[in-house]
Amino acid sequence: MSREIEELQAALRRFAEERDWDQFHSPKNLAASLSIEAGEVLEHFQWLTDDQSRQLDEEQRKAVGHEIADVLLYLLQLSDKLGIEPLGAARDKLAINAAKYPADKARGSSKKYTEL
Amino acid sequence: MSREIEELQAALRRFAEERDWDQFHSPKNLAASLSIEAGEVLEHFQWLTDDQSRQLDEEQRKAVGHEIADVLLYLLQLSDKLGIEPLGAARDKLAINAAKYPADKARGSSKKYTEL
Amino acid sequence: MSREIEELQAALRRFAEERDWDQFHSPKNLAASLSIEAGEVLEHFQWLTDDQSRQLDEEQRKAVGHEIADVLLYLLQLSDKLGIEPLGAARDKLAINAAKYPADKARGSSKKYTEL
Amino acid sequence: MSREIEELQAALRRFAEERDWDQFHSPKNLAASLSIEAGEVLEHFQWLTDDQSRQLDEEQRKAVGHEIADVLLYLLQLSDKLGIEPLGAARDKLAINAAKYPADKARGSSKKYTEL
Repeated sequence: MSREIEELQAALRRFAEERDWDQFHSPKNLAASLSIEAGEVLEHFQWLTDDQSRQLDEEQRKAVGHEIADVLLYLLQLSDKLGIEPLGAARDKLAINAAKYPADKARGSSKKYTEL
Repeated sequence: MSREIEELQAALRRFAEERDWDQFHSPKNLAASLSIEAGEVLEHFQWLTDDQSRQLDEEQRKAVGHEIADVLLYLLQLSDKLGIEPLGAARDKLAINAAKYPADKARGSSKKYTEL
Repeated sequence: MSREIEELQAALRRFAEERDWDQFHSPKNLAASLSIEAGEVLEHFQWLTDDQSRQLDEEQRKAVGHEIADVLLYLLQLSDKLGIEPLGAARDKLAINAAKYPADKARGSSKKYTEL
Repeated sequence: MSREIEELQAALRRFAEERDWDQFHSPKNLAASLSIEAGEVLEHFQWLTDDQSRQLDEEQRKAVGHEIADVLLYLLQLSDKLGIEPLGAARDKLAINAAKYPADKARGSSKKYTEL
């Protein structure tokens, strides 16, 4: 478990308590918020080509950074409510993906593992 | 910067390199993936009431954990591509939110800061 | 096929042609736009309770109406590009759902058909 | 108002009544469902290039058609609950967009109207 993440989750807990926002922060509402904010990240790329998306200027990069931050804040709050350790869950998922997509079979392919 | 996060980002970079997947991992595609996976988190709460969402059973909690992991993995890859330090960006955003939503004005309200 | 829908799709085609926007309107970009706009619909309900969402005031109803319109406009453009007749596809899907969710088994349950 | 759309909305109302699903179909839940299904449309394009998305094979086209149908079904139900006439709202929005994006200023540009 990362100390930095635990500290940020504790700060988010205090933030919500001081504003009496826990009533709004059901896991359901946090999941909706996560999805809404992820859509706002995508909005910055809506009309860019793939190449343009690889070459954001500083202003775009900063704007995307703020939206990524919003996604991460909701992800940490949702994880906290559900008692899920997000980095551990991510590490476990990466191991599952490595088994689903062996390098020699998946190389250069974007097919789903069920179709490899 | 969190060492755990840096290590996970390095592991994701190796994972993509070994599979020659960098061609698919434009920031634009990673942003779309982030949004798709956030939708899959939300799907688990689609028909639950708020109260039910606060009382997931172990099986539901585990399933949601896998989807949260997917969101975090894409968030870390997108941040890595864009040179954004996600925890730092999240801390900065929390400070911005604290200024936008002073505790005494925002208490118990779900209004947007522009309407407080 | 609905004449009203065909006319709106034709108007959208002219709109894009007059602005030379066809270059941006790949099915992939239209699908991303559909998802972004659907997120903006959801944003209006983000912190409402279920009951509050059933009792929008006129201003809220109008704001949601604009976002629903955006979703429908992208849906019609995407359908047009792909040669899909959206009302026909929706009717077919409703018939499929009726078979998946027989009224006597699905009554009062929000379970997925695979779990009924 | 399109008779085809009214008929489909009436069929959806009957479908929900026969299953006693109205309790689940709050505008909030329908908006979440709209967003979830729009994400499933996007998922079909997740790793495709723009060009590939313009050349779906028949199987892909059919799969996307089913997801578009799901989006439309939720959009019609949400509109019905809120008393919004979706085609009229879409026509109004197109007129607003035409004013925001005059052809001579917007030609060949994907900039937002506030930046034109």
